[in-house]
Amino acid sequence: MSTSYKRLDKDNAAVLMVDHQAGLLSLVRDIDPDRFKNNVLALADLAKYFKLPTILTTSFETGPNGPLVPELKALFPQAPYIARPGQINAWDNEDFVKAIKATGKKQLIIAGVVTEVCVAFPALSALAEGFDVFVVTDASGTFNELTRESAWNRMTAQGAQLMTWFGLACELHRDWRNDVEGLATLFSNHIPDYRNLMTSYSTLANSK
Amino acid sequence: MSTSYKRLDKDNAAVLMVDHQAGLLSLVRDIDPDRFKNNVLALADLAKYFKLPTILTTSFETGPNGPLVPELKALFPQAPYIARPGQINAWDNEDFVKAIKATGKKQLIIAGVVTEVCVAFPALSALAEGFDVFVVTDASGTFNELTRESAWNRMTAQGAQLMTWFGLACELHRDWRNDVEGLATLFSNHIPDYRNLMTSYSTLANSK
Amino acid sequence: MSTSYKRLDKDNAAVLMVDHQAGLLSLVRDIDPDRFKNNVLALADLAKYFKLPTILTTSFETGPNGPLVPELKALFPQAPYIARPGQINAWDNEDFVKAIKATGKKQLIIAGVVTEVCVAFPALSALAEGFDVFVVTDASGTFNELTRESAWNRMTAQGAQLMTWFGLACELHRDWRNDVEGLATLFSNHIPDYRNLMTSYSTLANSK
Amino acid sequence: MSTSYKRLDKDNAAVLMVDHQAGLLSLVRDIDPDRFKNNVLALADLAKYFKLPTILTTSFETGPNGPLVPELKALFPQAPYIARPGQINAWDNEDFVKAIKATGKKQLIIAGVVTEVCVAFPALSALAEGFDVFVVTDASGTFNELTRESAWNRMTAQGAQLMTWFGLACELHRDWRNDVEGLATLFSNHIPDYRNLMTSYSTLANSK
Amino acid sequence: MSTSYKRLDKDNAAVLMVDHQAGLLSLVRDIDPDRFKNNVLALADLAKYFKLPTILTTSFETGPNGPLVPELKALFPQAPYIARPGQINAWDNEDFVKAIKATGKKQLIIAGVVTEVCVAFPALSALAEGFDVFVVTDASGTFNELTRESAWNRMTAQGAQLMTWFGLACELHRDWRNDVEGLATLFSNHIPDYRNLMTSYSTLANSK
Amino acid sequence: MSTSYKRLDKDNAAVLMVDHQAGLLSLVRDIDPDRFKNNVLALADLAKYFKLPTILTTSFETGPNGPLVPELKALFPQAPYIARPGQINAWDNEDFVKAIKATGKKQLIIAGVVTEVCVAFPALSALAEGFDVFVVTDASGTFNELTRESAWNRMTAQGAQLMTWFGLACELHRDWRNDVEGLATLFSNHIPDYRNLMTSYSTLANSK
Amino acid sequence: MSTSYKRLDKDNAAVLMVDHQAGLLSLVRDIDPDRFKNNVLALADLAKYFKLPTILTTSFETGPNGPLVPELKALFPQAPYIARPGQINAWDNEDFVKAIKATGKKQLIIAGVVTEVCVAFPALSALAEGFDVFVVTDASGTFNELTRESAWNRMTAQGAQLMTWFGLACELHRDWRNDVEGLATLFSNHIPDYRNLMTSYSTLANSK
Amino acid sequence: MSTSYKRLDKDNAAVLMVDHQAGLLSLVRDIDPDRFKNNVLALADLAKYFKLPTILTTSFETGPNGPLVPELKALFPQAPYIARPGQINAWDNEDFVKAIKATGKKQLIIAGVVTEVCVAFPALSALAEGFDVFVVTDASGTFNELTRESAWNRMTAQGAQLMTWFGLACELHRDWRNDVEGLATLFSNHIPDYRNLMTSYSTLANSK
Repeated sequence: MSTSYKRLDKDNAAVLMVDHQAGLLSLVRDIDPDRFKNNVLALADLAKYFKLPTILTTSFETGPNGPLVPELKALFPQAPYIARPGQINAWDNEDFVKAIKATGKKQLIIAGVVTEVCVAFPALSALAEGFDVFVVTDASGTFNELTRESAWNRMTAQGAQLMTWFGLACELHRDWRNDVEGLATLFSNHIPDYRNLMTSYSTLANSK
Repeated sequence: MSTSYKRLDKDNAAVLMVDHQAGLLSLVRDIDPDRFKNNVLALADLAKYFKLPTILTTSFETGPNGPLVPELKALFPQAPYIARPGQINAWDNEDFVKAIKATGKKQLIIAGVVTEVCVAFPALSALAEGFDVFVVTDASGTFNELTRESAWNRMTAQGAQLMTWFGLACELHRDWRNDVEGLATLFSNHIPDYRNLMTSYSTLANSK
Repeated sequence: MSTSYKRLDKDNAAVLMVDHQAGLLSLVRDIDPDRFKNNVLALADLAKYFKLPTILTTSFETGPNGPLVPELKALFPQAPYIARPGQINAWDNEDFVKAIKATGKKQLIIAGVVTEVCVAFPALSALAEGFDVFVVTDASGTFNELTRESAWNRMTAQGAQLMTWFGLACELHRDWRNDVEGLATLFSNHIPDYRNLMTSYSTLANSK
Repeated sequence: MSTSYKRLDKDNAAVLMVDHQAGLLSLVRDIDPDRFKNNVLALADLAKYFKLPTILTTSFETGPNGPLVPELKALFPQAPYIARPGQINAWDNEDFVKAIKATGKKQLIIAGVVTEVCVAFPALSALAEGFDVFVVTDASGTFNELTRESAWNRMTAQGAQLMTWFGLACELHRDWRNDVEGLATLFSNHIPDYRNLMTSYSTLANSK
Repeated sequence: MSTSYKRLDKDNAAVLMVDHQAGLLSLVRDIDPDRFKNNVLALADLAKYFKLPTILTTSFETGPNGPLVPELKALFPQAPYIARPGQINAWDNEDFVKAIKATGKKQLIIAGVVTEVCVAFPALSALAEGFDVFVVTDASGTFNELTRESAWNRMTAQGAQLMTWFGLACELHRDWRNDVEGLATLFSNHIPDYRNLMTSYSTLANSK
Repeated sequence: MSTSYKRLDKDNAAVLMVDHQAGLLSLVRDIDPDRFKNNVLALADLAKYFKLPTILTTSFETGPNGPLVPELKALFPQAPYIARPGQINAWDNEDFVKAIKATGKKQLIIAGVVTEVCVAFPALSALAEGFDVFVVTDASGTFNELTRESAWNRMTAQGAQLMTWFGLACELHRDWRNDVEGLATLFSNHIPDYRNLMTSYSTLANSK
Repeated sequence: MSTSYKRLDKDNAAVLMVDHQAGLLSLVRDIDPDRFKNNVLALADLAKYFKLPTILTTSFETGPNGPLVPELKALFPQAPYIARPGQINAWDNEDFVKAIKATGKKQLIIAGVVTEVCVAFPALSALAEGFDVFVVTDASGTFNELTRESAWNRMTAQGAQLMTWFGLACELHRDWRNDVEGLATLFSNHIPDYRNLMTSYSTLANSK
Repeated sequence: MSTSYKRLDKDNAAVLMVDHQAGLLSLVRDIDPDRFKNNVLALADLAKYFKLPTILTTSFETGPNGPLVPELKALFPQAPYIARPGQINAWDNEDFVKAIKATGKKQLIIAGVVTEVCVAFPALSALAEGFDVFVVTDASGTFNELTRESAWNRMTAQGAQLMTWFGLACELHRDWRNDVEGLATLFSNHIPDYRNLMTSYSTLANSK
């Protein structure tokens, strides 16, 4: 009795980055700030690398929640950018949903701050409309681990799949031979241990 | 193949606060006391803010379990208050169930002490009668994390949804524009980091 | 759409204590020894208190696994005691299964050492034969938390329910009025915080 | 061979609250925000209660560090308030040191954000000038535990004493009979477990 | 209503060891290195002991990922060994799948580095083709616990069973009497606590 | 350049148990309740076993702090028992100091609740008067680890020695041959792992 | 009785970076890799910013220990760089000590991998020769926390001071007015929370 | 003002292994068993490698404490082996002290089980007689971390130095050139991460 493997396909996936705003980031305490910053930028870099349609959205960015993290804005200058006037669930914003549907993709990769709201609400809405949802757990943050676990539980009960940015990159890439250097650069920039392996390797290999 | 999103609706939700008694609170060791006190009061404040019908109940309050936390009694002077004469599962008390049914609501938000008993028993009973159940995990406490995880597992296997008070507030409110100040006040009173964001923001904004 | 609540019924439940042997206990490192000892004895006391049929079994007790913990033997002098000659899964031992079936009970409460073997194997076998299975997570121990979580995951995927001894006692007792003193004594003997509540309460009450 | 006990004396102690600013507080990650907020306010309340001369200071409060937490400003409207124009070590600011010396006290109780800078630098300077220094460890916060331990180590090597607000209160008060109600109120407002004890006690005592 | 117990059968199981390479192992930070090394070797030893067909595979072993751990190569000199030229999901490599199907086994025991990629991808592919999948959680490693939990969640949602090497050995062996000495040796070599029990036991037994 | 070893001598040591009261115990959160209860009773048992003069004292035991734990009162019916009318530092109570001096002992073993107050204050006072002070760290409890570490730091800077009850017992006993059975019984009653060792040992030894 | 404050002076301090090599970094498991990489680069950046003489050294860099991290080499192209041929304690290498003495500085800031060897050995040697030693605890890594604590203990017993890179920068800078922008840039590049504060602040300030 | 560096000298050091017995090892819960076993054997291997005089001792090895771990006995067949008849502090046994003094060494490296007794007591005695004492913290184990920290505190207050086996090996070896292969083998056998570095390195180097 086989089960289905909903496998990420780079031609059918879009990335939603929800509310990675300078103020809201100070609420994130379930992941260390250095690691979290790296994870968010790694996700952005991989979206860029795989040329996945990417949609940015913010909540009340002129208030205490603060502006979108500038690095994200800079990486995706052409991306749809929906500054929501009030809707907490991004899916309640018509422009956001329109932008998603305009991509024509059925696999939605979602990350955001905070996990149980900015990620979970649109994830549950998307699942209810038949999309496949992949939550990027390490590029989503919240108040503490108890909250995170509650949010994961609620989302996965409805079929969301939990992934981290490294797994995403590997599943999208499929085969190193598609571009060894590109993927290696992505890993080297965002995984210190991998960078060290590459440094030792290339130094020794080049010393021959 | 879509799944359903059981979304909280402030016109269809009631809050059950089960056994937050002064003696029983000393049993709670899976959440730090300062944080737990804040979470319970935040839940109470949001119930009040959203005008959700709220029902209080206690177990043996004249014995060592101690009286209901006075703040809760003070916040809900008109709420049904069922001092159970002996039933451990609040759902076994007819008055409690009657009070719930009298609200006409189908979404039950439950918090209590201790999680695996005072929350889990009525949650399982309510699910068996067809209610939607939302467990407020951070306003429910118990002996230790192993016990909490066991209790969560049992409840979610039957369909209970795990949420925290912040997620509840966001899902009930839907849109900041419904009342920016009200929601902001709730967050400012119960999330120190958010209060700090607001302090910095308003100080700077007002200095113009 | 209601779900069923498989509620413990003291007239339909039996307790299986599997391999709580002096040698094997030294393998338990996911629960602190003082707490674990207390939990196992609490489970035994509640089995006694509720007069639940209780079955003891051991694996190779004449070898390094060591003898059954003497306190358990002493508490249940008349209980079926199956010293298995080699079967690792107690359910593979005919006498063990016969003893269970002889009780006529359909709800099996299982605890043992180590969780992923001595508990999980008979739990999965019992579920496959249609029994309801309640795993006492805090009276079952194993090498570390990773192993415990793996074992819980495997068992609950097949329908086992995770409980702790305190939840068991509460669900079996149903109503304090059935015997206030008996239940209070059980709690006082095995929950230091509860004992303290009772001490403070009764001292003050008696000082009137 | 006796050693000396440098015991806090409420007639010889002053409190220094250094850089508890809305922006800097978002850097504190070695103590949970709910607990930290409570500790800082408890320290302020006890300074008030014991009428200890209290000095407030901030660093660059018009920039991203943000304004002093409003509650502190409100509690000490008459206190010396030194908004430092640039000195990182508050002791490098003449007004700050003058304000301290003006109190005539020799025991300095210091708390601040972040521990290894805003607390440690003035603490080391004060020790070098012969003051007795009491660091309030739970009302001082920093990036993580590694940093905190490093800072504690550096300060205690020079003779600073580590205390928490509760210990301070007890050592300053000396004897409950000096004012039972006052101290109890302080504890009740800032220690949830103590508040619960008092609730249970007074409810039962009053029920006679 | 019984459920099925997918029980390991040593005549129907094969072991897949995926990417336990010297470089990749430096990425593993969710399990302590001493413990992880022991777990991987224990799994290899049990595969050998139970004569389970075992398949080794590596990813880019001439690059920074490094060579297969030499101990594994030495233990299984005749095992199919697939050095994948680029496929990240081992199941995308035809030789790997052919080698598996050639064993004729339907129960696949999988371990690898890193869990969410090298284990999860082939596990999901195998489940989709109707195999029973047993993930050896303690012989699989990854970057951190958040990643591990995400990976477990994704795999178990599709029916993978989580086990540890000790549970595997016990379920495969079934009855100590099949070979007391062999199993005891396996445990003694890989469980220090068990080795100590045996040392104490045999010393005392032999002293008679 | 040798240093001195201040070694415990059972003929020169007295035990001070400070404020182990039913209410105050609910404040202890740096040690698990099952373990803490065991440690306190182990300390009491060893004081009894070594016939060390033992002094009990409480703070405000008719209020919310609650009565002395009954087991302690029962174990030392003849011991000096000083119910302090208000002094927070027990050393400020003349009767307490008199009782200590009446023992003629110079080594004071102190345990209490909470560590930074009820233990630290008399410890510092005793050190200042030239006593040797041994703090029983595992029979003393407080709010959290940060507080404990601060308290330890303050006490050891003045020369207090940190010990646990097991170390105390061993240093006082000196040689097993002084009474093998007595010491073994003490350990068996308070160290589950040791009890298991003894059970396995004696069962096997007796089976010869 | 005052104590001396050994305060860092940017005109009297030199930085020693010992053995931050690509291979050795895989041994560091007491600090998360993302955080550790950031800390090491922050230390390097501050050395550069304050124009502190900086000395690099490596151990066996042509073997498995691997080459110096390339970023460090790139940042300090003119710095003395001592590739030690075999001495484990860098201080045993004459060139290293000569380079240090050539700086004429008396305050040595040391970081390295692993803490108990590459940091502790030269630190102890330098202390023995009368230098002031400041260990950068968060830019030094080792196998685990037990090892780190042991190493800290050994070094501080001889007078080493424990600091983190942020404290170093603050103590060296003394006054924001010396260069607001320079210090702010350093913090913004290496403290995500501080960067966020600055983003929110400048966005709002510029919006006026 | 320089301090002295008490540096290990392989010509002046002896190793004392105290009570590493099969039964007592089950009491060790502050270090994971796989890691602890490795650390103890690593210490033994380095003692052998550096030809340090090594002394073994046990307490009551014919009782429940169990026999000395067989690997240690096998490694040091000629070493003085003192089976103490009852003295808990090994230093109270004349033969033990004689054996130490017979080595003529002044630097004592001590490891044992449990830390606060079997290590701390002889360490304090040795310090009192003018020996330099180096405690091997990772080859010494005890009940929990609280106990360990108490024991470390007591020993270091008297001048004991805390080290781990890796630091010991490095300080004793001084220079890789004394024997590259020997030291590398020691590390490869006991540090999985180092072994992996060597595997990757040599594979690549040999592939040239």
